[in-house]
Amino acid sequence: MNRTQLVSTIRQKKTYLCVGLDTDITKIPIHLLSEPDPVFSFNKAIIDATKDHCVAYKINTAFYESRGLKGWESMERTVRYIPDTHFRIADAKRGDIGNTSAQYAKTFFEILPFDAVTVAPYMGEDSVRPFLEYPDKWTIVLALTSNTGSKDFQQLGMAEGDCLYERVLETTASWGSTKNLMFVVGATKTTELEHIRTIIPDHFLLVPGVGAQGGSLKEVSASGMNKDCGLLINASRAIIFADDTEKFAKKAAAVAAAYSAEMAAYLH
Amino acid sequence: MNRTQLVSTIRQKKTYLCVGLDTDITKIPIHLLSEPDPVFSFNKAIIDATKDHCVAYKINTAFYESRGLKGWESMERTVRYIPDTHFRIADAKRGDIGNTSAQYAKTFFEILPFDAVTVAPYMGEDSVRPFLEYPDKWTIVLALTSNTGSKDFQQLGMAEGDCLYERVLETTASWGSTKNLMFVVGATKTTELEHIRTIIPDHFLLVPGVGAQGGSLKEVSASGMNKDCGLLINASRAIIFADDTEKFAKKAAAVAAAYSAEMAAYLH
Repeated sequence: MNRTQLVSTIRQKKTYLCVGLDTDITKIPIHLLSEPDPVFSFNKAIIDATKDHCVAYKINTAFYESRGLKGWESMERTVRYIPDTHFRIADAKRGDIGNTSAQYAKTFFEILPFDAVTVAPYMGEDSVRPFLEYPDKWTIVLALTSNTGSKDFQQLGMAEGDCLYERVLETTASWGSTKNLMFVVGATKTTELEHIRTIIPDHFLLVPGVGAQGGSLKEVSASGMNKDCGLLINASRAIIFADDTEKFAKKAAAVAAAYSAEMAAYLH
Repeated sequence: MNRTQLVSTIRQKKTYLCVGLDTDITKIPIHLLSEPDPVFSFNKAIIDATKDHCVAYKINTAFYESRGLKGWESMERTVRYIPDTHFRIADAKRGDIGNTSAQYAKTFFEILPFDAVTVAPYMGEDSVRPFLEYPDKWTIVLALTSNTGSKDFQQLGMAEGDCLYERVLETTASWGSTKNLMFVVGATKTTELEHIRTIIPDHFLLVPGVGAQGGSLKEVSASGMNKDCGLLINASRAIIFADDTEKFAKKAAAVAAAYSAEMAAYLH
């Protein structure tokens, strides 16, 4: 999905919600555990129920890998089930030397039909480039994350006066364009968001941390939105685990719809 | 495998060689392609041929993931085939917020029988901690990598006068001990190695970049060795793809044996 299509979908549906499929098998409703692939059955129900209220899904690969082969089967089924009208993100946080990153890019862009993959910047340009070489695919680079550990390195001051995350934004932005590069900025970092918009006014941001992690949708939207919206705001646990009974999908839809109704009011 | 066992294995076998199983299916000998699992058949032959000449194997997860489900099957078979007399490294470069890193730790330490996993430090303490919580398992944090991109962020100067990679070494070392934490330092960084040893004299280092990437075994050993050896030096392509005929395993063994003979001379 290219930028024009993404922006047009956001305008049409009046939402910039991304539903995070962090599907922990120990947290899904008990009645699903007798299904042949409980995680896929759960995701399928969540996707069916929420697809009108979101523009993107984000699959957190860790929750699938931790079930071994069965988990990868659930992930494959899930990403193939997401309609191609939706932006499909592999939240994988990969990154390695060039020939290895090329293999990861192949995994998520050729073997699996993801539109985007999250990438860690620590190893520099040749670790990010292979992802950028795919037309109409997106690389989402970690900039300022939502967790407490973001202070350990990301927010440290550099010799030239800026912080590491600012340097990551500036340098990485020069490797791609606003059409193939996004950045992860945590929803708990609203103070920094306005400043980040002075560095990268036009890029899309993937913003996790609304919901279970406590970020404010209102504040993120006020500080981070640009003329093309420029935001994909992710909520995972707050939507998919809103209820653990047979009504889980209905409840997930209601929570997603509530987020989207709020987003519609912020879109201009 | 704990530190005492690792050091004792190195002393006994007089080698600190790690064989990297970056098994690209497009590079394995053609006659293996008719096997049910060509990548596993290749790895099995390499392991059988090289196990007397090395103390560790490093599986680069990217080369397995890029073949989807089949690739994960090959990876599972391979890690289960490596004798537990050898140190088994998942070169996965993972790292995410705490609850997600815990899932990755489960993947490599519970679902799969790895002794160690490589982790990217960008997201800070809570992204690394879950890996450190497993007794007798190891977290190998990226510090100064072998690729050209290491200059983009790792080697940048910080406000307090050090470089980012030095800060990563100092800060991360305080989260674990010399018994559960190692660092990745590229073999192409011999100038920095002596300096790195002033920061972390006692930790083990995983050193990729010998062989195809051009690092010198002699220089790395001279600059990086400590009283417990403290080095695992990895070669991947130079060993496993030394030959592409039916003699590939024999040739791999010869190359591994040559590295090990050189290492025996450097060990004191």
